[in-house]
Amino acid sequence: MKRTSFALVVCWISLAHSPGATAEPTQEGAKTSPVVDSDVAKEGENKTRHLGIVLYDRFELLDVAGPAEIFGSVGPRLKLVMIAENAGPVRSTQGVAMNADYSYQDAPPLDLILVPGGIGTLKMLRNKPLHDWLHARVPDAEIVMSVCSGSGILATAGILDGRKATTNKQSYRLITAWGPKVEWIKEARWVDDGNIVTSSGVSAGMDMALHVVQRLHGEKTALRIADGTEYEWHRDASWDPFAKFAK
Amino acid sequence: MKRTSFALVVCWISLAHSPGATAEPTQEGAKTSPVVDSDVAKEGENKTRHLGIVLYDRFELLDVAGPAEIFGSVGPRLKLVMIAENAGPVRSTQGVAMNADYSYQDAPPLDLILVPGGIGTLKMLRNKPLHDWLHARVPDAEIVMSVCSGSGILATAGILDGRKATTNKQSYRLITAWGPKVEWIKEARWVDDGNIVTSSGVSAGMDMALHVVQRLHGEKTALRIADGTEYEWHRDASWDPFAKFAK
Repeated sequence: MKRTSFALVVCWISLAHSPGATAEPTQEGAKTSPVVDSDVAKEGENKTRHLGIVLYDRFELLDVAGPAEIFGSVGPRLKLVMIAENAGPVRSTQGVAMNADYSYQDAPPLDLILVPGGIGTLKMLRNKPLHDWLHARVPDAEIVMSVCSGSGILATAGILDGRKATTNKQSYRLITAWGPKVEWIKEARWVDDGNIVTSSGVSAGMDMALHVVQRLHGEKTALRIADGTEYEWHRDASWDPFAKFAK
Repeated sequence: MKRTSFALVVCWISLAHSPGATAEPTQEGAKTSPVVDSDVAKEGENKTRHLGIVLYDRFELLDVAGPAEIFGSVGPRLKLVMIAENAGPVRSTQGVAMNADYSYQDAPPLDLILVPGGIGTLKMLRNKPLHDWLHARVPDAEIVMSVCSGSGILATAGILDGRKATTNKQSYRLITAWGPKVEWIKEARWVDDGNIVTSSGVSAGMDMALHVVQRLHGEKTALRIADGTEYEWHRDASWDPFAKFAK
């Protein structure tokens, strides 16, 4: 029985979860561009990065869990940590609690930071502990990301001033008003402005995450994850059928 | 400031989260079928249902969080509870922990049950506490769902015998072998067999969840959630570009 279980684990891993172990990628982009690791990925190949995702009361569950699924499937070179003002369970808008491994005080050095959205955003717009933490940590981060109304938090913290960004489309007018110095882009699934990458609402975080994985680890890794999770990756950042809600 | 915050909350909720408050749905199906609540939804309109999602060590994060986002956005008529052998944090394959509100022993009566997949499935195939719990609870449930390799657990518990079902495509041969009496369907995003609804791998759980929401609460509610989460809902159960991996 032990031997069988081991064989199943190996089989499962080789089929679904290992880099380069899948068959030809099905995602559309693969038809037009060759599947190769980017130079950036090669350059940083042996680097292990830490991604810190910020949790706060009434965050939007998929804003966190979508990118966490993608980044958490990269492999040992990318480690996920959940961070909140206090470690322990943090309740989402959907009623489900996720666990913060670290508080703002004891979070490890972070290469990547992701700020989710959700109805709880409203209380975070002027939340001093979060803003202090962002001001302390953002300058050292390689890439800072937000999903949905999370860009509203980055905006009120002044982190997006003079930068290109996008946000949730059904609350577009509300959120963009929080960042008058931001160059908001209405029709965008995500906006890559170098060390700042922001996505549109909720599900868009997964497309943004795959884009960032491609930047850091190459296209092959991103396609392996998209296919392994049976996710139809929207690879065009300008694809945004929900922009019509931005009024 | 308090007045402003309240206005923002109302605005946010009315824009993004309230039933029927959105503009015209963008999802493709809306072009061919009218947006009306189903008879089923009308019939059960005032019923509050409880959905129990099972967590176990090394579950696949999005198998749980994708459907939890969808079902958790229905409103007060659908309450989500997370259940595990023991209440408390349960670690996913992606390293992120979600919190079980209840143990098998103290879980409330459930109208809906969802079993996720993930590498941890392997240990659950013959796990007596889980199988005993399923055998005790499934007969009273209106709909039992699984995502990805979760159908392997339902299969080894005998719950899928003689029923139509699907599962993860990259591990299709492995998982379907666990249920020799199941009528497995290879090319399917999800399979609706009445009180049993099973989805393909990981992301497919979101399409299945929207389908079940449509069954229980009507098309308008499902479209409101898809648009609010900026999710491109695959409404055709036979859409399955990942079936090519099932060898």
